Amino acid sequence: MADILDEYCERFRNWGKWGLEDEIGTLNYITPEKVIGAARLVKQGKIFSLALPFDANGPQTGRFSRVNPIHQMLATGTDHATGRQSFQGRPFPRGFGYADDTVTMPLQCGTQWDGLSHIFHNGKMWNGADASLVSSDGAARNGIEKMRDKVVTRGVLLDIARAKGVESLEPGYAITTSDLDVAAERERVGIEPGDIVLVRTGFMGYCLAHGWGTYAGGDAPGLSFHTAPWLYEKRIAGIASDTWGVEVRPNELPDSFQPLHLVMVVNMGLLVGEIFALDELAEDCARDGVYEFLFVAPPLPVTGAVGSPINPLAIK
Amino acid sequence: MADILDEYCERFRNWGKWGLEDEIGTLNYITPEKVIGAARLVKQGKIFSLALPFDANGPQTGRFSRVNPIHQMLATGTDHATGRQSFQGRPFPRGFGYADDTVTMPLQCGTQWDGLSHIFHNGKMWNGADASLVSSDGAARNGIEKMRDKVVTRGVLLDIARAKGVESLEPGYAITTSDLDVAAERERVGIEPGDIVLVRTGFMGYCLAHGWGTYAGGDAPGLSFHTAPWLYEKRIAGIASDTWGVEVRPNELPDSFQPLHLVMVVNMGLLVGEIFALDELAEDCARDGVYEFLFVAPPLPVTGAVGSPINPLAIK
Amino acid sequence: MADILDEYCERFRNWGKWGLEDEIGTLNYITPEKVIGAARLVKQGKIFSLALPFDANGPQTGRFSRVNPIHQMLATGTDHATGRQSFQGRPFPRGFGYADDTVTMPLQCGTQWDGLSHIFHNGKMWNGADASLVSSDGAARNGIEKMRDKVVTRGVLLDIARAKGVESLEPGYAITTSDLDVAAERERVGIEPGDIVLVRTGFMGYCLAHGWGTYAGGDAPGLSFHTAPWLYEKRIAGIASDTWGVEVRPNELPDSFQPLHLVMVVNMGLLVGEIFALDELAEDCARDGVYEFLFVAPPLPVTGAVGSPINPLAIK
Amino acid sequence: MADILDEYCERFRNWGKWGLEDEIGTLNYITPEKVIGAARLVKQGKIFSLALPFDANGPQTGRFSRVNPIHQMLATGTDHATGRQSFQGRPFPRGFGYADDTVTMPLQCGTQWDGLSHIFHNGKMWNGADASLVSSDGAARNGIEKMRDKVVTRGVLLDIARAKGVESLEPGYAITTSDLDVAAERERVGIEPGDIVLVRTGFMGYCLAHGWGTYAGGDAPGLSFHTAPWLYEKRIAGIASDTWGVEVRPNELPDSFQPLHLVMVVNMGLLVGEIFALDELAEDCARDGVYEFLFVAPPLPVTGAVGSPINPLAIK
Repeated sequence: MADILDEYCERFRNWGKWGLEDEIGTLNYITPEKVIGAARLVKQGKIFSLALPFDANGPQTGRFSRVNPIHQMLATGTDHATGRQSFQGRPFPRGFGYADDTVTMPLQCGTQWDGLSHIFHNGKMWNGADASLVSSDGAARNGIEKMRDKVVTRGVLLDIARAKGVESLEPGYAITTSDLDVAAERERVGIEPGDIVLVRTGFMGYCLAHGWGTYAGGDAPGLSFHTAPWLYEKRIAGIASDTWGVEVRPNELPDSFQPLHLVMVVNMGLLVGEIFALDELAEDCARDGVYEFLFVAPPLPVTGAVGSPINPLAIK
Repeated sequence: MADILDEYCERFRNWGKWGLEDEIGTLNYITPEKVIGAARLVKQGKIFSLALPFDANGPQTGRFSRVNPIHQMLATGTDHATGRQSFQGRPFPRGFGYADDTVTMPLQCGTQWDGLSHIFHNGKMWNGADASLVSSDGAARNGIEKMRDKVVTRGVLLDIARAKGVESLEPGYAITTSDLDVAAERERVGIEPGDIVLVRTGFMGYCLAHGWGTYAGGDAPGLSFHTAPWLYEKRIAGIASDTWGVEVRPNELPDSFQPLHLVMVVNMGLLVGEIFALDELAEDCARDGVYEFLFVAPPLPVTGAVGSPINPLAIK
Repeated sequence: MADILDEYCERFRNWGKWGLEDEIGTLNYITPEKVIGAARLVKQGKIFSLALPFDANGPQTGRFSRVNPIHQMLATGTDHATGRQSFQGRPFPRGFGYADDTVTMPLQCGTQWDGLSHIFHNGKMWNGADASLVSSDGAARNGIEKMRDKVVTRGVLLDIARAKGVESLEPGYAITTSDLDVAAERERVGIEPGDIVLVRTGFMGYCLAHGWGTYAGGDAPGLSFHTAPWLYEKRIAGIASDTWGVEVRPNELPDSFQPLHLVMVVNMGLLVGEIFALDELAEDCARDGVYEFLFVAPPLPVTGAVGSPINPLAIK
Repeated sequence: MADILDEYCERFRNWGKWGLEDEIGTLNYITPEKVIGAARLVKQGKIFSLALPFDANGPQTGRFSRVNPIHQMLATGTDHATGRQSFQGRPFPRGFGYADDTVTMPLQCGTQWDGLSHIFHNGKMWNGADASLVSSDGAARNGIEKMRDKVVTRGVLLDIARAKGVESLEPGYAITTSDLDVAAERERVGIEPGDIVLVRTGFMGYCLAHGWGTYAGGDAPGLSFHTAPWLYEKRIAGIASDTWGVEVRPNELPDSFQPLHLVMVVNMGLLVGEIFALDELAEDCARDGVYEFLFVAPPLPVTGAVGSPINPLAIK
């Protein structure tokens, strides 16, 4: 017997809406006019980075095989300073020296986009493509690189924690449609088609102050499963939050795992962002009362990747 | 006896100009007004990604220990499709499945910013900091993360190849100050303080068509050492090109290695971008005659990194 | 219609021979008595390492996603020498310093064992286990770690190149059963159950002198497909060679890829070693006339791995 | 004023003993006769692997930038089973399939040898070589690859925990010279030049049962600093234990960090092994009363590495 999960998956399914070959989903809501309008929101020349630093102090614990970024040097200033740096067997001429480095990281270990190839449901992914198209060779469909030139639009911050007057929502708190609407009203901001909506729970700030604890995959505040109609009807291009998984945990539906993802990513084709650092931006929005901005957050076009680390910018 | 390298290093040295603690160099030329003005350049809603795909087909050969990005899966759709995906020892409920992945890459193996800790000269780096501050623990000064919220400005494309009517400049061709000025004039575009200038040689396109060859570190067209005064006097915030190293190779000064880097990065504090994919943008600029745009290219804030892979966007 | 590939797969199938749960195949031929006898071969106290150096100069080209080992430092002597090494925010006491390092490598990029989970045939692997038991989580069956305490036995070098009086067999040359027998006879050595046989083609030495060329996956000398009966009937525990893939390339059977592997690994359960450095040992064997030795080559027990880098030792 | 650390460093310094160019230290004590004698200890044909599994369940916590091994697949059986595996754009012929994998790991994250380039003292390493010879390019002197064909000798297990009748020595317990001698006497085994001595504290077994806790770098039982004379005078080739750092922690000398390493590694040139899994071997030794065996533990010859993961074998 079908339940609300099945019902929502079917009701909010956008497969075929932008053609059978589409691989970018709701990013199609971002039109040239939308981009132009978003750029007009830049009135003060302020720039906010919404990325958590990518380093060993991140939230990952190894769960789901996700570790924090591993940054390593290939060449250093200490090599240069001790005269140990060479080129083709000889010291570099004229006092030249350099440093170089590498990173090894899960693409979704920090501030990130979920690609549309990140989530499967019963053997399918976005637009009905077969899940097995994502093999060890990467995503032959719906790879993150398809979004390389798409993520420029109007961003709106919905600061739920501030609207409720708390430092952070409690783990397990399910943000409702009403919560979203109340925050928007309080901020005097509307949600328009093509927007990317940033939902602040305050939970990252709490964890930065008190320790990550179970941030990565444990209990957390987040969107209720029942916000699916809101996400669909607003025709937004993306949603992001300051938590590991955007939706509330523990999950609300019995015997389910990230059920809203099944609706959002697999069926709706919605761009989902996680582990966004929203506190500095939120402070500023509270100060100047402006909760809308130009939002630019291009993924790194790693071919066939199912997600990407990002440094999203809000520009006011 | 001092020669032109020493002379230029000293003459174009910005150390202390923005304070002794400064770690972002010429990005200081980007003012709030500059950001506002840049956003106003968005008139058509067109977005161009200037990143080369990050994958195994990149230009690196292992030289300088730089390899191409290594993308690997942590979880796949083929696992899901064969029922081999589990969570805490049991299958995921409700047909849920997911893919996840990692990347291992030199931070400067593809489209990238050089950080101000990337280059040293006689034991010093930008703003006079000691080179040995860049150790195996990363850059304690001038790390790329300091630029996390800085790289939003007006971008200008100087299409030198097109100005000269060639598919690509020849390897070894040294772009002169006059070449830059002629191109700007031809494009009816001025260079202003705080701009980031994109110099197209056509060499990447040539290599994409004919094989990378010695693209990574071998002979290439690029800026003449003698453009240093131009770079300095224009008070630009950054310079980028479609080659491995921006400056011409073989290098012009006898017994030198990337001498312009010593002037630009170490002394001027200029942001330098390399391996930019400029052809699609250039096509469009030739078509609509608009060579200026909003340019947004935030680095990934990898703590203590000396460079960063990027997906730069030009927005018209 | 069944051909010789199907026939050999069936005829030389050891599935169930050592129980349905067996995960080590022909290593079962190594009995305690065999180990004792092998140790008695140590009469001169000479030790030979059969590993190619693990570094960036290895044979891999990126084909099949295999790159050469990437060795990187976590801490260096240059850091120590410049006073940049610290512990919990303070310099190490008493002049202490250290270096530390990492490796990133395909497990089969250099001298290596193929695990019994490395090769599949029509959905099955060794002992009839389902291929899908090898997922992104690794090999749930037939992982290399099952062999952690098994690879100690009598080793025999069959120096085919020397027997034929050539520096190296030609790429494409298929070593016959007769070649193996003639070499053994010439060396006055018998092949006994439980032995691990090292077959020298000379091709690695040729490549070390003249460049790797297509060593990794291209044309190479190696075992003929028709040696399968010999490998089976001798009841050897393992076979290894100084080439990328042990068997001759191009492969002999039309429209096939490494067909002998299907017989050896999937059906016979034979341990296969590749990229062995045999030249120094071969020199010594030619000198003293002793072609048998204690052979010790334990895999690194990486849990769920389908192969392992090794440093095999021949001890005479 | 010189104290016991300075005194021991000087008193037990073997620099120059095997020539100024020596890079293997006390492994020089292993003579051909020693190897022959060691092989004669193989009387039962039993093989013991002394390696902890290399996987995500290891003891590392990120401290000192050491993480546990990261094992990832390049190709899987699930790809094969779903028909997603191809070669040069076509499916493999004849039902062929394969799995392949990689590892990323600190070389000393699990069962391992410290190379003689791993530890520095006042700018020097083994045999008086300059510490700065270990740069980002690896160890130009005393690299682990120099030991590739050296580590075959008599092994002796000194089971201190069993001698004291405890499951595990307590963290902070400093094993004395007397403890070593008493255990040897109880086991009726002598320590001879060229031996590699395995000291069992029981602490790994305790941690495997109760959680790693601070195993990696925290308090642990281990050798007293005052065993240095014993280690020197016995002329052993190596020492290994079932702890993170062999020597007792907290360290005994005030304001010191791993002071015994300064004596052992830098001055004595002693091979030091850590994180050895000794419990299964110890059980067997207790059963049959035989505490000596052929010990074979070749490092992986990673060029310029300062340590190596190993799978040491004890063969009785």
